Amino acid sequence: MSRFFSNKYQNLTPYTPGEQPKDMQYIKLNTNESPFPPAPRAVELAAEAAQKLQLYSDPECRDLHKIFEDVFGFSKDEVLFTNGSDEILNFAFMAFCDKEHPVVFPNITYGFYPVFAELNGIPYEEIPLCEDFTINVENYIGIGKNIFIANPNAPTGIALPLSDIERIVASNPDNIVVIDEAYVDFGGESAAPLTRKYNNLIVTQTFSKSRSMAGARLGFGIASPDLIRDMNTVKYSTNPYNVNSMTMAAGIGALSCEDYTRKNCQTVVENRTFCMDAMQKMGFEMTDSKTNFIFAKHPKIDGDVLYTKLRERGILVRHFTNPLIAQYNRITVGTRDEMQALLCAIADILEENNR
Amino acid sequence: MSRFFSNKYQNLTPYTPGEQPKDMQYIKLNTNESPFPPAPRAVELAAEAAQKLQLYSDPECRDLHKIFEDVFGFSKDEVLFTNGSDEILNFAFMAFCDKEHPVVFPNITYGFYPVFAELNGIPYEEIPLCEDFTINVENYIGIGKNIFIANPNAPTGIALPLSDIERIVASNPDNIVVIDEAYVDFGGESAAPLTRKYNNLIVTQTFSKSRSMAGARLGFGIASPDLIRDMNTVKYSTNPYNVNSMTMAAGIGALSCEDYTRKNCQTVVENRTFCMDAMQKMGFEMTDSKTNFIFAKHPKIDGDVLYTKLRERGILVRHFTNPLIAQYNRITVGTRDEMQALLCAIADILEENNR
Repeated sequence: MSRFFSNKYQNLTPYTPGEQPKDMQYIKLNTNESPFPPAPRAVELAAEAAQKLQLYSDPECRDLHKIFEDVFGFSKDEVLFTNGSDEILNFAFMAFCDKEHPVVFPNITYGFYPVFAELNGIPYEEIPLCEDFTINVENYIGIGKNIFIANPNAPTGIALPLSDIERIVASNPDNIVVIDEAYVDFGGESAAPLTRKYNNLIVTQTFSKSRSMAGARLGFGIASPDLIRDMNTVKYSTNPYNVNSMTMAAGIGALSCEDYTRKNCQTVVENRTFCMDAMQKMGFEMTDSKTNFIFAKHPKIDGDVLYTKLRERGILVRHFTNPLIAQYNRITVGTRDEMQALLCAIADILEENNR
Repeated sequence: MSRFFSNKYQNLTPYTPGEQPKDMQYIKLNTNESPFPPAPRAVELAAEAAQKLQLYSDPECRDLHKIFEDVFGFSKDEVLFTNGSDEILNFAFMAFCDKEHPVVFPNITYGFYPVFAELNGIPYEEIPLCEDFTINVENYIGIGKNIFIANPNAPTGIALPLSDIERIVASNPDNIVVIDEAYVDFGGESAAPLTRKYNNLIVTQTFSKSRSMAGARLGFGIASPDLIRDMNTVKYSTNPYNVNSMTMAAGIGALSCEDYTRKNCQTVVENRTFCMDAMQKMGFEMTDSKTNFIFAKHPKIDGDVLYTKLRERGILVRHFTNPLIAQYNRITVGTRDEMQALLCAIADILEENNR
């Protein structure tokens, strides 16, 4: 750190993205990317937009809002698009949290929440999950602090039913509740409709996973117009042109192919079931994933060892060093072929381990 | 504003981007966009990248760094790429400025500096320009505060010589000096080489103007490795995947066509001279622009009136309500045809005005 670095960041530990090694070709099951290409129309429109890059992107994202409203029914004043969903999450931390409005979230969840809290100087408390990695909803009822919950949660993959989300939101009317639905399209229930009923609810989603657009960076938040207006104030004070024109075009293309998105999600769910069934037979313990990843541990092999041995065999999965989950690996659900390759590699590693 | 909006933003007035009306086709001379399309190779590579959007972009931007070093000689540890240059400017405010490290900048300059300062709770002081809109360098010598200077300045278009920049940087060794070179490619001198001599200097630039990539959002900062590391800490705590993969690809394409960029800049400079010569004959007073825009007022017509009358004629220019410059308009230099259309419209308006 240089002698100029602000003291306010002394304790800031940045987020660590999943590794992207370039030494060889891996089967990448470590960053929850879709195994399918983006919708053909998304590719087409992005390529067209590339020809007109000399013009600024529309800071209001009007064309994207139009099709979004056609597809999902939420109007421009209820939605804010951002440069990935990390940005809308940060906007929510910035706009609604401060020293007087601290934050709570589960102690095992998306690793960026404590980073955003630290970055913005916001006091935060991490509420332990139950032993089975589920969220104990009672812990959040009437807690009187701002709440961030990933639903389904990451990296556990476990989803809360909508009724539980509603109880949390309803019991904290003077606080913001952010439901981060990055993985909702693989089996969760979206709380988006509840934003019409509760003016303290923000639902965030992303085009990264179900719409195969991780490389494009497109996220969004749905909330009451008042909250969207506040987050727009932050956006226009941070980066008014936060969404570039190619990404906006790709988003429009993706939304015009929702059948394609649904079919891909269905395939991921089928491959998840296929892979989890096989892993169960091999002795793995797994959570009830409603996402595009599997969260698994094996009683006979340490999490980091399995990670390393898979890596040696050209398969990347995600291992977290947090002791609470160090026995687990988070494995992205890919194509059937990728899952087959994973299962072969695991069988091989377990056999080697038993010798 | 909702009842949840943080008190810390009570005084925050967001930046106002140039208007992007959709009611009719305008000659857009209001946001300093390039009149030329991006380099063909930029378009090609962006379209290719669109096909692989399911994968995250490389948070380290390794391929982009490689060609950047080939072209400009600055290595990966001296450069940080961002989602437009607004983002690198915000990172500099975040990383190096706080209540104990206040900021100064000219009172007429890029309108985002006070917004960033306000957003981050940083005390700031605006130092008046001279009457002729030049920066009085003496005001910044040994001032002992962090300094942001756009060079060339906006919307005045006036450039400081490198020797003046160096004096400012050298006389404030315990403070950060940020030189915002968004418009440097149209006649200014870049301070980038001085980052090797002074570890308190950050130079920011953008692909928006000279490389016709405003819609792609690609900016960067050049500084000593220590400062880049600090700003990377902020990046990885804000938005690790801030640069999407299509923009990265377009940037690589643009850097592989630097001849194209230089030719376009040369054309803009020629069109600027052509247009300013004609406007001078019409009685306009203008600053000595080293940018892709003209900053002009006419003794016989108010700035806002000229703006409105041009708009009625389908030509958009940028008018600022700040009383110090309300008599002026900022007019982007476009193609020769666009400049001809502008001159005709102005002649028409002045004639109408004289009747």
